[in-house]
Amino acid sequence: MGTVPLLSDDALSDEAHAVFADIRATRGTDYVNNFWRALAHDPAQLKATWERIKEVMAPGALDPLVKEMVYVAVSTANSCSYCVHSHTAAARAKGMTDEMYAELLRVIALASQTNGLVTAMQVEVDDAFKA
Amino acid sequence: MGTVPLLSDDALSDEAHAVFADIRATRGTDYVNNFWRALAHDPAQLKATWERIKEVMAPGALDPLVKEMVYVAVSTANSCSYCVHSHTAAARAKGMTDEMYAELLRVIALASQTNGLVTAMQVEVDDAFKA
Amino acid sequence: MGTVPLLSDDALSDEAHAVFADIRATRGTDYVNNFWRALAHDPAQLKATWERIKEVMAPGALDPLVKEMVYVAVSTANSCSYCVHSHTAAARAKGMTDEMYAELLRVIALASQTNGLVTAMQVEVDDAFKA
Amino acid sequence: MGTVPLLSDDALSDEAHAVFADIRATRGTDYVNNFWRALAHDPAQLKATWERIKEVMAPGALDPLVKEMVYVAVSTANSCSYCVHSHTAAARAKGMTDEMYAELLRVIALASQTNGLVTAMQVEVDDAFKA
Amino acid sequence: MGTVPLLSDDALSDEAHAVFADIRATRGTDYVNNFWRALAHDPAQLKATWERIKEVMAPGALDPLVKEMVYVAVSTANSCSYCVHSHTAAARAKGMTDEMYAELLRVIALASQTNGLVTAMQVEVDDAFKA
Amino acid sequence: MGTVPLLSDDALSDEAHAVFADIRATRGTDYVNNFWRALAHDPAQLKATWERIKEVMAPGALDPLVKEMVYVAVSTANSCSYCVHSHTAAARAKGMTDEMYAELLRVIALASQTNGLVTAMQVEVDDAFKA
Repeated sequence: MGTVPLLSDDALSDEAHAVFADIRATRGTDYVNNFWRALAHDPAQLKATWERIKEVMAPGALDPLVKEMVYVAVSTANSCSYCVHSHTAAARAKGMTDEMYAELLRVIALASQTNGLVTAMQVEVDDAFKA
Repeated sequence: MGTVPLLSDDALSDEAHAVFADIRATRGTDYVNNFWRALAHDPAQLKATWERIKEVMAPGALDPLVKEMVYVAVSTANSCSYCVHSHTAAARAKGMTDEMYAELLRVIALASQTNGLVTAMQVEVDDAFKA
Repeated sequence: MGTVPLLSDDALSDEAHAVFADIRATRGTDYVNNFWRALAHDPAQLKATWERIKEVMAPGALDPLVKEMVYVAVSTANSCSYCVHSHTAAARAKGMTDEMYAELLRVIALASQTNGLVTAMQVEVDDAFKA
Repeated sequence: MGTVPLLSDDALSDEAHAVFADIRATRGTDYVNNFWRALAHDPAQLKATWERIKEVMAPGALDPLVKEMVYVAVSTANSCSYCVHSHTAAARAKGMTDEMYAELLRVIALASQTNGLVTAMQVEVDDAFKA
Repeated sequence: MGTVPLLSDDALSDEAHAVFADIRATRGTDYVNNFWRALAHDPAQLKATWERIKEVMAPGALDPLVKEMVYVAVSTANSCSYCVHSHTAAARAKGMTDEMYAELLRVIALASQTNGLVTAMQVEVDDAFKA
Repeated sequence: MGTVPLLSDDALSDEAHAVFADIRATRGTDYVNNFWRALAHDPAQLKATWERIKEVMAPGALDPLVKEMVYVAVSTANSCSYCVHSHTAAARAKGMTDEMYAELLRVIALASQTNGLVTAMQVEVDDAFKA
């Protein structure tokens, strides 16, 4: 129902096939979700996006679960339904408990609320907050 | 320059004064930032908002620094300039290092990018992601 | 500081001049705010926009003040700083009291909050709500 | 199909059960819509949200129908599909006629349009609009 | 499933009927898509919107295909699912090839990404960019 | 005034210095705008972003001016003030005339308007638009 058909494995270009193989190996599952099957129409973009995700979402100064929760937060504020679904599932797979999820929702709700208040009142930035 | 003047301490109602006293005691500083000085025009809303923030942002299943980073993420996606400034400052005050901040920015950038791609292609949600 | 210079009266085309005259007559003031001075670079768009505003914001099934408050709400959610300022001023000029404004802000804050919650949880629309 | 299952009445905690009872009593109907059934996973958040809605949406300086229309406006600009559906239904239940709804849509459309124009041209805020 | 029922041809007012006739004549097809069938509840708004679209989307300094791609870009950033679908279809009907579409998606993705970065860092506008 | 100080040339890391040199050579000017000076705090992100921009914005199936106009459209809908300024300037540098700009603004305004209408009415996607 998207603007492009989802590509099945046998419709992939060689370059897209290689990316799918890496997705499967990295994630340890044969399942490749719809985002990649849509993006596979542009193998160069597919490859660039996958490599960026692999790099950015890897453990670093922030742990991967924190990164997934940030991803859910951005996707919610951007009203990206698919992204909310896929990254909430990813956060759970990385250990997000029901308690953590409830707190994440509370912070998203609170931030949305105060964002609205601040924008409506056009509050000036305090000098103390400027770098 | 906002839509309401910022209230100085001597212009506060008694109810607003009590909230400011609690903000100062809780944060251990005399400084009260502009958001509260704008919101003080509606003491009931001021009180409700401050109490909610105190409760939601407290340590729990997620630590306060993670919550501040989620707050920055939501505020960025909502284009709330003041909120980005104030919660980035708060995250730093709670221990966000330059490395953590750089990673936070990378996740925000990546999520924004894939949100755009997914929405443009209107990718259908995988059954596997539904609760 | 915008992307186009603001046009002073003596820089207006004849068509733009006529629109400015109607703005002044309709509003009963000589002051023409910056939005119109920016838009005046495209007199046809200026005219179409002004005529639409005059028609849509006129008294009807909803009174003009309610319309201005709805305008503030949309502008806030769209993070349009100029629009929030100008329509908050317009709402006040049409009789919005401090109490009404405080309630407007509460509704905007509440709606922003529950919008965030609903989008994060991807709640399905009840059959009862469908037309 | 959300990120959390909707809770039926017999799956509710005692605290959530009490909130549902108050929703039913306040609204004079046995029907509890999906938002509350999703939120019921976090009874404290459920209670806080319901109490805030009851308070904010009550008659005051603005009448409840005006508040519902503002709610629809914010929800539209935030692209919250569920919220648009539920608050449009609520506005109708509170007396929004077809004529009022048509005017509401016109204002939302007009505000969206001028928000886009203003942001694209980055119009500076007039001094006259600053508090 | 919308907030208003879609009007079939025999439910149209005379004014709406005339607009539908012009849509059909202009586009050279009997098919009238759902947007117009929803908007037809407000014949004056229907007429104003259709006439504006006909004028704005016509060939001019920009060709119609470029305009459709800009429309897709705005609709994506505003998370308007219907609009993304209808204007992507329109762009294809006006000659957008798979290669052009892939490049459009890349620009949308890139702009979304740098928008997020810039907003998160609150970068000051260079004097060189001001009009 | 951002959340990070802008780096002057003598504060750059070697990796950031190399990126700046490439920006200067590619653009044929010594001027490096603030976005890059903010991003230079994370040389890896700086390099990845610059290389992506160079690649995506290059001539291809779409010409670079069309890409800049799409960039302006996305940045406007995302309320990114800096991005609107910088990409409007870039579009002008690539040949956008006043007439083209006026038409771009009209399309952005129109799309914003119909996005609002469609979302408010929750119009169902026509089967004809699905891929």
